[in-house]
Amino acid sequence: MEEEADIVGKAFVEHYYQLFDNERPSLSTLYQPDSMLTFEGQQILGVDDISSRLQQLPFERCRHVVSTVDTQPSAVPGSILIFVSGSLELPDEEHHLRFSQMFHLVPTAQGNLCVQNDIFRLNYG
Amino acid sequence: MEEEADIVGKAFVEHYYQLFDNERPSLSTLYQPDSMLTFEGQQILGVDDISSRLQQLPFERCRHVVSTVDTQPSAVPGSILIFVSGSLELPDEEHHLRFSQMFHLVPTAQGNLCVQNDIFRLNYG
Repeated sequence: MEEEADIVGKAFVEHYYQLFDNERPSLSTLYQPDSMLTFEGQQILGVDDISSRLQQLPFERCRHVVSTVDTQPSAVPGSILIFVSGSLELPDEEHHLRFSQMFHLVPTAQGNLCVQNDIFRLNYG
Repeated sequence: MEEEADIVGKAFVEHYYQLFDNERPSLSTLYQPDSMLTFEGQQILGVDDISSRLQQLPFERCRHVVSTVDTQPSAVPGSILIFVSGSLELPDEEHHLRFSQMFHLVPTAQGNLCVQNDIFRLNYG
């Protein structure tokens, strides 16, 4: 299970940032009505508000470069905790912004993994 | 529940780093036989090995300075996800080390909150 969690978790991270950087509206497919996002301290509840918030970020284009991905199986059967560190490249920023983000993926009734918890922070140096 | 999770989560963080910086052996009281720690990519399972690893870190004295604490209730009833950013001050290091850490606190059969999942990373600039 730990190895499976790691494979699934790393595939999720790749998929998530690929969507974020190239097809941001499609991120809504990964959240549920009771999903939670804390973005730089701001708490947002539910797929609709999370999706709106991610659309409204003050940059249209960006690129996430992942440095580390750590995963652990969670106490909920089939669920996975993921911890990411990396940098965010914006077209108008000379310096890259370091970030850390955690995801808690939980299986839905249909058996798909969805983001139940998402916490994002920029790491100010 | 969200507000309660936030109060409990922040109290835990203060307690955890107070023990880490002043009474490191007592951290073992916060973990369980099935707790997981991923420390800079190294996976450690169970309170005994986690406690040994934390004792063997290559510094005797340190001070954690917390910058941000974000909390969310988790899918397991009564459990809390915590995401911390901060810096680690070591006596022999001129520069502080930035870190991020996440905890998943889950209630035991006795009703105490214990660390089920713990992932720690230094943020290299």
